[in-house]
Amino acid sequence: MQYHLNGFRPGDPAVALQTPSATDQSDVDVLIVGCGPAGLTLAAQLAAFPDITTRIMERKTGPLEVGQADGIACRSIEMFEAFGFAERVLKEAYWVNEVSFWRPDAEGNGLHRADRIQDVEDDLSEMPHVILSQARIHDFYLDVMRYSSHRMEPDYDRELISLITTEDPDYPVTATFSCLDTEGKIETIRARYVVGCDGARSVVRKSVGQELMGDSARQLWGVMDVLAVTDFPDIRLKTAIQSQDLGSMLIIPREGGYLVRLYIELDALQGEERAADRDVSPDMLIQKARDILSPFLLDVKEVAWWSAYEIGQRVCDAFDDVPVVERGQRTPRIFIAGDACHTHSPKAGQGMNVSMADAFNLGWKLAAVLRGQAKPMLLDTYSEERRAKAKELIDFDRDMARLFSAKPKNAGEAAQFQIYFKRHGRYTAGVETRYDPSIITRTTKHQTLANGLTVGMRFHSAPVIRLGDGKPMQLGHVLKADGRWRIFAFGGAEDVGQPGGGIAELCDYISHPTNPFGATVGKGEHVDSVIDVRAIFQMPHQEMKFETMPSLLRPTKGLYRLVDYEKVFCPDFKNGLDIFDQRGIDRQKGALVIVRPDQYIANVQRMTDFDDLGLFFVSLMNPN
Amino acid sequence: MQYHLNGFRPGDPAVALQTPSATDQSDVDVLIVGCGPAGLTLAAQLAAFPDITTRIMERKTGPLEVGQADGIACRSIEMFEAFGFAERVLKEAYWVNEVSFWRPDAEGNGLHRADRIQDVEDDLSEMPHVILSQARIHDFYLDVMRYSSHRMEPDYDRELISLITTEDPDYPVTATFSCLDTEGKIETIRARYVVGCDGARSVVRKSVGQELMGDSARQLWGVMDVLAVTDFPDIRLKTAIQSQDLGSMLIIPREGGYLVRLYIELDALQGEERAADRDVSPDMLIQKARDILSPFLLDVKEVAWWSAYEIGQRVCDAFDDVPVVERGQRTPRIFIAGDACHTHSPKAGQGMNVSMADAFNLGWKLAAVLRGQAKPMLLDTYSEERRAKAKELIDFDRDMARLFSAKPKNAGEAAQFQIYFKRHGRYTAGVETRYDPSIITRTTKHQTLANGLTVGMRFHSAPVIRLGDGKPMQLGHVLKADGRWRIFAFGGAEDVGQPGGGIAELCDYISHPTNPFGATVGKGEHVDSVIDVRAIFQMPHQEMKFETMPSLLRPTKGLYRLVDYEKVFCPDFKNGLDIFDQRGIDRQKGALVIVRPDQYIANVQRMTDFDDLGLFFVSLMNPN
Repeated sequence: MQYHLNGFRPGDPAVALQTPSATDQSDVDVLIVGCGPAGLTLAAQLAAFPDITTRIMERKTGPLEVGQADGIACRSIEMFEAFGFAERVLKEAYWVNEVSFWRPDAEGNGLHRADRIQDVEDDLSEMPHVILSQARIHDFYLDVMRYSSHRMEPDYDRELISLITTEDPDYPVTATFSCLDTEGKIETIRARYVVGCDGARSVVRKSVGQELMGDSARQLWGVMDVLAVTDFPDIRLKTAIQSQDLGSMLIIPREGGYLVRLYIELDALQGEERAADRDVSPDMLIQKARDILSPFLLDVKEVAWWSAYEIGQRVCDAFDDVPVVERGQRTPRIFIAGDACHTHSPKAGQGMNVSMADAFNLGWKLAAVLRGQAKPMLLDTYSEERRAKAKELIDFDRDMARLFSAKPKNAGEAAQFQIYFKRHGRYTAGVETRYDPSIITRTTKHQTLANGLTVGMRFHSAPVIRLGDGKPMQLGHVLKADGRWRIFAFGGAEDVGQPGGGIAELCDYISHPTNPFGATVGKGEHVDSVIDVRAIFQMPHQEMKFETMPSLLRPTKGLYRLVDYEKVFCPDFKNGLDIFDQRGIDRQKGALVIVRPDQYIANVQRMTDFDDLGLFFVSLMNPN
Repeated sequence: MQYHLNGFRPGDPAVALQTPSATDQSDVDVLIVGCGPAGLTLAAQLAAFPDITTRIMERKTGPLEVGQADGIACRSIEMFEAFGFAERVLKEAYWVNEVSFWRPDAEGNGLHRADRIQDVEDDLSEMPHVILSQARIHDFYLDVMRYSSHRMEPDYDRELISLITTEDPDYPVTATFSCLDTEGKIETIRARYVVGCDGARSVVRKSVGQELMGDSARQLWGVMDVLAVTDFPDIRLKTAIQSQDLGSMLIIPREGGYLVRLYIELDALQGEERAADRDVSPDMLIQKARDILSPFLLDVKEVAWWSAYEIGQRVCDAFDDVPVVERGQRTPRIFIAGDACHTHSPKAGQGMNVSMADAFNLGWKLAAVLRGQAKPMLLDTYSEERRAKAKELIDFDRDMARLFSAKPKNAGEAAQFQIYFKRHGRYTAGVETRYDPSIITRTTKHQTLANGLTVGMRFHSAPVIRLGDGKPMQLGHVLKADGRWRIFAFGGAEDVGQPGGGIAELCDYISHPTNPFGATVGKGEHVDSVIDVRAIFQMPHQEMKFETMPSLLRPTKGLYRLVDYEKVFCPDFKNGLDIFDQRGIDRQKGALVIVRPDQYIANVQRMTDFDDLGLFFVSLMNPN
């Protein structure tokens, strides 16, 4: 964390200096509808910019307290680190360290533990896979919003009743809300952009004429959070149980050491039957869970929350308001994210994660366009990128749900699920997401310069030592959710005897006022405010001299032009493998890695291909 | 963190269910005078017990905002982990990773870096050495107090004007405060115990007739926190500079990446001269710092805080109100802690740490006596233990201050300080504290069973895997500040084929109602509420069966008699060395380690010396 830049300020450094709030403003830059994981991620992202006004409206009367999603993929915690609250999640959450698989023995009797495996493979992420109530994740986001310069708070009791696009050049979308806390009262807000994060029954989605398309698999499931006593030995492990004839159950231990979530397979729905028609009750779920777990005992003492749902894999045609025929002709003004544009079963633990990833993808793009940095066509990439990922997810989910519900006829069949599960560990960890080539994701032409940092995938962190203060840390943790692009320059052989070498040349290029970057940065602003350049050298940090670094790597900033000492890194040799080995960096040539504000790798290129670097940003950014 | 034991409860699990508060009560169990690090540590410790009423009074008008202490030893962060806020400190603080030493070259010219070393040796602690404003540490303690069942808040604007002991059998100490916020108003509080954490000019100390004895070294020092621009390359490393003729300076980089603290040697005081006589000003300190740092430049942009002080090493004869002749005849009622009973220079970074350690030593003892668990003689050990440590500290500080201020005549002399500094790294990390044998610290008779867990020293954590959920974690992090004793049973060879073996026998013994423990536990309470038993086996956790563990290691608790799955551990083999090797546990015989509620090791003994175990607790605890 860097602070005190413009003078010492006592108190919590996470609390920003206050600027005028958007609360009660009727004209805003961004209007978010819905306070779920997507809406809150987006609000927290936009809260980082004092020059953007945002409001977030929610139909419910207050913050979520119980239930709903709880699985948090490694990738989401990497993102939470960017928002500054990963450590709170890691502290409270249950950590999924292992997964166990139980099924009848070869004769079809009883239940036995068929396997017990590590949940997340080594070095998949610096973060674990954890389980924590969605309500707590909401709380953490609400704190980020509350501590921002806007002191942003959601407006509750606001139900969207209409959303129309007008000819107004500044605020072309008008939203009308019914104020549920004041009978008959209506609130109208005009916005430059509107984002519907309003769930599977999204009013925003309907207003742009989109609908969720796909199967309803007709399989009924129950879910409940319980405090229970059992002699089942793996009750504190994530466990998949496939009984002989009574269906399947997934055990997800929860935070706090005692609570546990059970996903329980119920019967297939018939004809036009809906989940609500079945009169599912907690007692029914408890009885079914006891049957599946038999001969082990399950004594449920308290049901903290429960629900019943059908599995259905559905997705919209587009995640914004631009019809196919108009694509490229005009930029989108209304977006949808999260459950509003894709639904799937909760068992793969993807729901909250994918919704947050939607919003993280969209947030920086909206900010860059609103702040005049990027061309509006950047906004087209949201629907392109995230719809492709949603389709992958529902395909994955359909396979997984089918395998999990299949009655295993023999051990071989039962083991299919287990094999599938293992193979897809990377996918469920959220680190397999790979965006296709576009204006913000280039090709893999120079991928061999950094084989472990794949273009289109998230920047995979590794341990380093920060030169300025010798601190051992994760390189990926410099990727804060501040809307900045990042350039990581990994030094090649000629940088070993620095000063000089490719990194010095790169810094000269970037610093030079006539380069294509200069034009993208606001007057009087340092390039660092838009593009954060970091360098990683191959030598032990004790052999490096900070004072010989190019001035771009020790920039002066803020009111007092203080020096930023946090731009240069070296391998952490105590770690066994160093980052050059861990991420497959070409030690001879080095590598230049361009990282998007959402932590995805835009390009890997040669250090001194300055034209490529310049063109990348010029194609995307507005001249200032 | 364990929660939801007595039913699911939404919200922040750190916030306890509210019980009636002691605020405004005029009769309390413990009255704390002073809101510094000692007072707040004690208040946070006592806040853990809903059955103890505590008030804490402070002369200042509100919480500390700037300045004062900033060095936080590894040992203190281990303690913060017990209070539940270590991660907040680690996130905000500057990490002291390396120390550099600068002095003139062999010809006495300029300054050069003579050495640059790792600050904390490997495996000294699982926690780093960090720097963070004392004000933030206060904030974290205030949050612990605020979130406790008492919702404890300090009373500010309360100046202690008298403290007397009466014959009242229940509340024998009466304190009178002047309410500085309401002219002429007086507040009187009666307490069972009073603890003076009211600093070097302690009124509580004077009221018990104690005084600080020792030298005033007459060396004047200045300290300031600055935002500055410099070409001195090690400005973000802890750096000791010994100039040829201009004195010495210590650079302590601060949190946030820009702020830095400078300790600057000024001239020796003459005769009766005091620090205040010298008219020290920030400009004077800046000029002196520039002189010492020359030929490097220092451009100070803002002075966030500054002070000037004399070094003096002083300590009281006793840290409570029992005169030598009455020792053992009556138990103490008034205690002093922190700067109230010892003063020393700030440069070894010990001030805040030792004060907090005083209070952590006292807190659990007061709680155990107030709750009727322990015999009142336990309270005598506070002054015995902590006065011995204060004397060690001032001896260390005197040596260090002398060496630091010595004008080095040649490189050999200059290097003396550096050698001394390295040798004492363990001491300044706070992990060398070793209490002498007493009723709560036994002899080292069986020390060889666990050579790395020294009787009288703090429990040195190491990585383990928790059996119940396969979680990799630090074993020491189960040592929460909850007033409980802990028994760590490290399994020997016969425990490898568990069930059976020494751990099973030990659990039988402890669980048996006729053992000496039974009597120390309240009616209807589980032994676990007073003594927390944990077992560590040698085998990989995948080879262990939770369900065959003795019932003491899977105790049922709370309203629903839910099972606690967090008592059993195995080595973390991914960690290279396993805990049995790291802490020198006898693999044949195993070891039983008794740990005090303040994390210090009371005894290492043989697993099945039940009589020794029973006698240890019987000698200390009250029958119930």
